[in-house]
Amino acid sequence: MYGLIGKMRAQPGQRDALIAILLDGTADMPGCLAYVIAKDAQDADAIWITETWKDQPSHKASLSLPSVQAAIAKGRPLIAGFGERFETEPVGGHGLAH
Amino acid sequence: MYGLIGKMRAQPGQRDALIAILLDGTADMPGCLAYVIAKDAQDADAIWITETWKDQPSHKASLSLPSVQAAIAKGRPLIAGFGERFETEPVGGHGLAH
Repeated sequence: MYGLIGKMRAQPGQRDALIAILLDGTADMPGCLAYVIAKDAQDADAIWITETWKDQPSHKASLSLPSVQAAIAKGRPLIAGFGERFETEPVGGHGLAH
Repeated sequence: MYGLIGKMRAQPGQRDALIAILLDGTADMPGCLAYVIAKDAQDADAIWITETWKDQPSHKASLSLPSVQAAIAKGRPLIAGFGERFETEPVGGHGLAH
């Protein structure tokens, strides 16, 4: 499996709008076993995205999906920047789609 | 929902053993919607745990479960320390148990 944990910062006041775009654009991605979008509890503009993929090529391919391309185009003006980004190899647990 | 993203560092060479203990002890926790254990891709001793809970009390209650208590007791000697820890409010996505 292939995993990513990353932080994104929305333009001030735009976090909910950005989250709605992300949820909409990432609902159906082949090879995606989990994709959780979360608000940072301390930083009012920050979003955490935790992704688990079947493998790295599945993640790479997802970036070309029309729904993901549309979300990137629509969301970009609302993104102020990116924070921490950790690459992982998920090994198991609870909540992974099959 | 209530979420945690945290890094744990195993004693050198003990990461796989620690992961096995964690997987075993956290398989069945009431109110847990997702619990993904991952190896850090860059740091050979580091583990990332990403948790999504129905609410914060469910997470707190899990720490008293016999299976979790046993995993803590068994895993503690293999833990070298803890790294980053982020508290979140998950809002949705793919891969959350119902």
